[in-house]
Amino acid sequence: MGQNITRKIIGAHLLSGEMTPGSEIGLRIDQTLTQDATGTMAYLQFEAIGLDRVRTELSVSYVDHNTLQMGFRNPDDHRYLRTVAARYGVVFSPPGTGICHQLHLENFARPGKTLIGSDSHTPTAGGVGSLAMGAGGLSVALGMAGEPYFISMPKVVRVLLTGRLQGWAAGKDVILELLRRLTVKGGVGKVFEFAGPGVATLTVPERATITNMGAELGATTSIFPSDERTREFFKVMGREDEWSELVADADAEYDETVEIDLSALEPLVAQPHMPDRVVPVRELAGLPVSQVAIGSCTNSSYADMKTTAQVLAGRQLPPETDLLISPGSKQVLKMLAAEGLVEPLLDAGARLLECSCGPCIGMGGSPVSAGVSVRTFNRNFEGRSGTKDAQVYLASAQTAVNLALAGKFTDPAEWGPAPQRVELPASAPSIRHLFIFPPENGDGVEILRGPNIVALERFEPLPATVRAAVKLKVGDDITTDHILPAGAQITALRSNIPAISEYIFSRVDEGFVGRMREAGSGFILGGENYGQGSSREHAALGPRHLGVRAVIVKSLARIHRANLVNFGILPLLLVNPEDYDRIGENSVLSIETASIQPGGRCEMTLQDAEPVEVTNDLTEKELDIIKAGGLLNYVRASDRA
Amino acid sequence: MGQNITRKIIGAHLLSGEMTPGSEIGLRIDQTLTQDATGTMAYLQFEAIGLDRVRTELSVSYVDHNTLQMGFRNPDDHRYLRTVAARYGVVFSPPGTGICHQLHLENFARPGKTLIGSDSHTPTAGGVGSLAMGAGGLSVALGMAGEPYFISMPKVVRVLLTGRLQGWAAGKDVILELLRRLTVKGGVGKVFEFAGPGVATLTVPERATITNMGAELGATTSIFPSDERTREFFKVMGREDEWSELVADADAEYDETVEIDLSALEPLVAQPHMPDRVVPVRELAGLPVSQVAIGSCTNSSYADMKTTAQVLAGRQLPPETDLLISPGSKQVLKMLAAEGLVEPLLDAGARLLECSCGPCIGMGGSPVSAGVSVRTFNRNFEGRSGTKDAQVYLASAQTAVNLALAGKFTDPAEWGPAPQRVELPASAPSIRHLFIFPPENGDGVEILRGPNIVALERFEPLPATVRAAVKLKVGDDITTDHILPAGAQITALRSNIPAISEYIFSRVDEGFVGRMREAGSGFILGGENYGQGSSREHAALGPRHLGVRAVIVKSLARIHRANLVNFGILPLLLVNPEDYDRIGENSVLSIETASIQPGGRCEMTLQDAEPVEVTNDLTEKELDIIKAGGLLNYVRASDRA
Repeated sequence: MGQNITRKIIGAHLLSGEMTPGSEIGLRIDQTLTQDATGTMAYLQFEAIGLDRVRTELSVSYVDHNTLQMGFRNPDDHRYLRTVAARYGVVFSPPGTGICHQLHLENFARPGKTLIGSDSHTPTAGGVGSLAMGAGGLSVALGMAGEPYFISMPKVVRVLLTGRLQGWAAGKDVILELLRRLTVKGGVGKVFEFAGPGVATLTVPERATITNMGAELGATTSIFPSDERTREFFKVMGREDEWSELVADADAEYDETVEIDLSALEPLVAQPHMPDRVVPVRELAGLPVSQVAIGSCTNSSYADMKTTAQVLAGRQLPPETDLLISPGSKQVLKMLAAEGLVEPLLDAGARLLECSCGPCIGMGGSPVSAGVSVRTFNRNFEGRSGTKDAQVYLASAQTAVNLALAGKFTDPAEWGPAPQRVELPASAPSIRHLFIFPPENGDGVEILRGPNIVALERFEPLPATVRAAVKLKVGDDITTDHILPAGAQITALRSNIPAISEYIFSRVDEGFVGRMREAGSGFILGGENYGQGSSREHAALGPRHLGVRAVIVKSLARIHRANLVNFGILPLLLVNPEDYDRIGENSVLSIETASIQPGGRCEMTLQDAEPVEVTNDLTEKELDIIKAGGLLNYVRASDRA
Repeated sequence: MGQNITRKIIGAHLLSGEMTPGSEIGLRIDQTLTQDATGTMAYLQFEAIGLDRVRTELSVSYVDHNTLQMGFRNPDDHRYLRTVAARYGVVFSPPGTGICHQLHLENFARPGKTLIGSDSHTPTAGGVGSLAMGAGGLSVALGMAGEPYFISMPKVVRVLLTGRLQGWAAGKDVILELLRRLTVKGGVGKVFEFAGPGVATLTVPERATITNMGAELGATTSIFPSDERTREFFKVMGREDEWSELVADADAEYDETVEIDLSALEPLVAQPHMPDRVVPVRELAGLPVSQVAIGSCTNSSYADMKTTAQVLAGRQLPPETDLLISPGSKQVLKMLAAEGLVEPLLDAGARLLECSCGPCIGMGGSPVSAGVSVRTFNRNFEGRSGTKDAQVYLASAQTAVNLALAGKFTDPAEWGPAPQRVELPASAPSIRHLFIFPPENGDGVEILRGPNIVALERFEPLPATVRAAVKLKVGDDITTDHILPAGAQITALRSNIPAISEYIFSRVDEGFVGRMREAGSGFILGGENYGQGSSREHAALGPRHLGVRAVIVKSLARIHRANLVNFGILPLLLVNPEDYDRIGENSVLSIETASIQPGGRCEMTLQDAEPVEVTNDLTEKELDIIKAGGLLNYVRASDRA
């Protein structure tokens, strides 16, 4: 039986387990990446493990989130990241150099390599055939320590691409179409592997847009073959020697297949407040647009920016509509400058922001009250933009720039002929010298810490009986932005768990933290797909700090589930979803730790009512980790560090 | 007797009063400008006056402070500013277009015109011979309404420039030298008028740097002649027709003279935390520098940026030192891009920020804890950078870029030969189309307001007896940053007085607001030069909202004094400075309103002690304004609106 790409890479990196969908496997990790908002915690954890140097082929620490540096906390964090990187053999990318995924794709991602990153959009590197997965910071720390990365063996979905993009349709519309069909829960436990004749029609940046936003399917990751197009890309990036071919066997088998005819795609848009609320752009014609933002790890490539500049050239934005542009990297910006493409952006009235995540994570660029904002980003969760009642739509750069010029949604039929799709240039200027490569031996490097960088606390093991009241009841599709909002003020506290915990669920229920403080411990009751979104482990660490001992839900998102395990919170699944209605805020439940078995059912007593049946999808090891009070305790107890 | 430039302009605009230093004069105002942090309040006040259209020759509303737009408040404010500008005939400059003073200099400032701006660095336009003064927002609102602007007739100081700048010395070093000699109190009640053979050796951007930072002398304003150099500048800016010659008569008289030999100047730097703590750069050789920032209304011109790019070309910053660059306007950035000067900045590792005030007002770019930051800005007040223990030094772009490359203070003798001074280019691209010019008739324009934009409250008139306790005792040189800190979080509340008042003196004494709330009214006791710094009238409005009825000080800064009057707070001066020591926090004082006479002495009773003798420098009208509860009440009562 022929192998698909996913199984080839997994097979070549398998350290433990069987490649049977659903069973736990341990993978050797070749590369890791971190960004600053999750990275400080990851390196604090790496320090706690006690090794002298990272054991990966390559680890890179990017600074792209908190680049505004409001107050001492962010710059102190960045200084910590710079020095801890030099100390332990990690490459450091200073603030302003660009967005982690764009930079990694341009400079470091390699076909066939495994990559984990403490950012949920790490699958971007799947655009060049890397098996790239988002993970919690602790998992990345363990990856840097040479430990296996444990996941549930995914099903592999073949996404069969036929045809060729037409007119204004873009790579972004491929992933929007997948989200439209499959929803934000449709990818759980799966890898989306792209195949078919349509693959060769897509450039690497287009592929990377697709694998990037595959994260919104809830997928383990997404991946493209590494083919001649990929070789071209590596050549332009000045690292053809790092390219290798990686394609599925002709008779490769897949667990499922989805087919997309690229020729049939039209410009699409995800409506508020979920990336799967996808409709054709034309259906919204007439809706005024107050802001447009082009950038983020999804759409900030040279091609996205050049397309934007070409459409803007000689035209001017209406006064009612702001256009914010954040190039993905200094390489992209240099290419724009060299081709005279900065001027058309400025002359149209667009605002040129620094090469960083920016508005995508609420770091500035918030829309006006109740404003409609069209963004080339990957998430439009409520409030993520920094304006609670803003209406955020997700679209391609092509769509975004046309709507910006019109000041409203229009039918793409009115946009005129689409410019030729931007191909790679013959060559691109290197910015490799802007990375700070670590010394051979980092022993002498002093790690500089600021007063906001607080060492990790040790959590208690799970008690024999876990008894507590439900302190918060929430609905379906709760995101990590609900659990811990982004935005400059809160994100500045990412290296200070006691301080950041004050904001847990603050936008959902301002009283939650107070109730937890009063009770000392508690449960969270949730619906389907609890914890989707970003990989921020603070969404588990914060609740754990406050005393949350279990989340009781209908279903869980992958990375958040792993983070709960890592910090000793029980992820319990309701056997009967209708029990959700029987349990209310303040309901007191109790579970005997000894009654919990990997994958087994057990009962929680519910005060004055029938017991609630719960189950779990934990492995034996995961359960042991939770019982130990989290992975760091577990690792310490096993003397592995 | 020959006339100096200052008296020529004042004479041509005099509506009331005598041109005798110290006596009140009323001036006709030709132009006004606002920026967004003070502008919302100014336009709310203009609306309260009730006119249909501004009565100036030109009024411009710039957005350059809160450009990060964190949350809905800033973008809502900006939308309000855009629509209120269109409604009342004001030119609007959208966020990202550039810094108000740089843009005004390039596009609108004119020799011989009077300009008031709700920003203390409005004197920048003095670089082309405009009599340009910082003012509170209410004064600007009245200026827009065609009302006279009242000031105390200044003394005119001739700054006699001889020689020519040598080596690495820059325009910035001229004003640093003046600050070194005269201190931040040295310019109170004075206009600094530049004259002598050295004037012709300075370009307009160099002159503008000098007049800009003349604000730090406490001066009413600073002004250069309009000469052939000025004509050149207007020609390059595409508005030679707006130029006119304006020079002092050959036998002009001045109240004082200061002489500076440009040839003798060396690179200077102002040390923390005051702009007059000036020493030669060489004296600090060896001090490590963690951050350098180039930009702000003081040093963000094409010449500053080009010099920076030239020095950086082919070199790279040390990893330990960040360099942040904010060009002053899109025109400047376009010129850099056209000349291929963006790439050297990026290749050196510098961070290119948006064309806005940025780090100068604590909008991002905060230094690390206790970090040394060298900035081309005009103020280094403690905490203004957003990092309370940061050590901020002020220097020229030439000095800043050299220190950035060295990663520490070095002796300019080690910097190698200075590049040729950057002259104006032959032509500059216009960005005039980026301003939004108002319609001929704005009647139909809907003014859009966000929920954070709170209408002005009406203040009570002064009671017959003002009796209260001192609720805060502070020392000398209290700045408006002490009274009301800048920074994104607080500045976002500039259109909401109740909300922003929570931050009054928050960095000086966290208990102050609580004590005022409890007491309902109170006094502030201060030392010399109380209220220096920015023109923000919120530093008077906020205290008034909290119930402050008088500030009792040794001396006052000009703009803040005017703001106190405008909002009905008594500015009382201690006749015997040693009484300062007799009064403590919670001392209860009382004054009979009827006993206060313009310029007269009277007594305040002091509980259980000898009375305290106070005086004032109020005009009769100013006293009436205070008695009425502020200028808006006074204007309403006089039926002037």
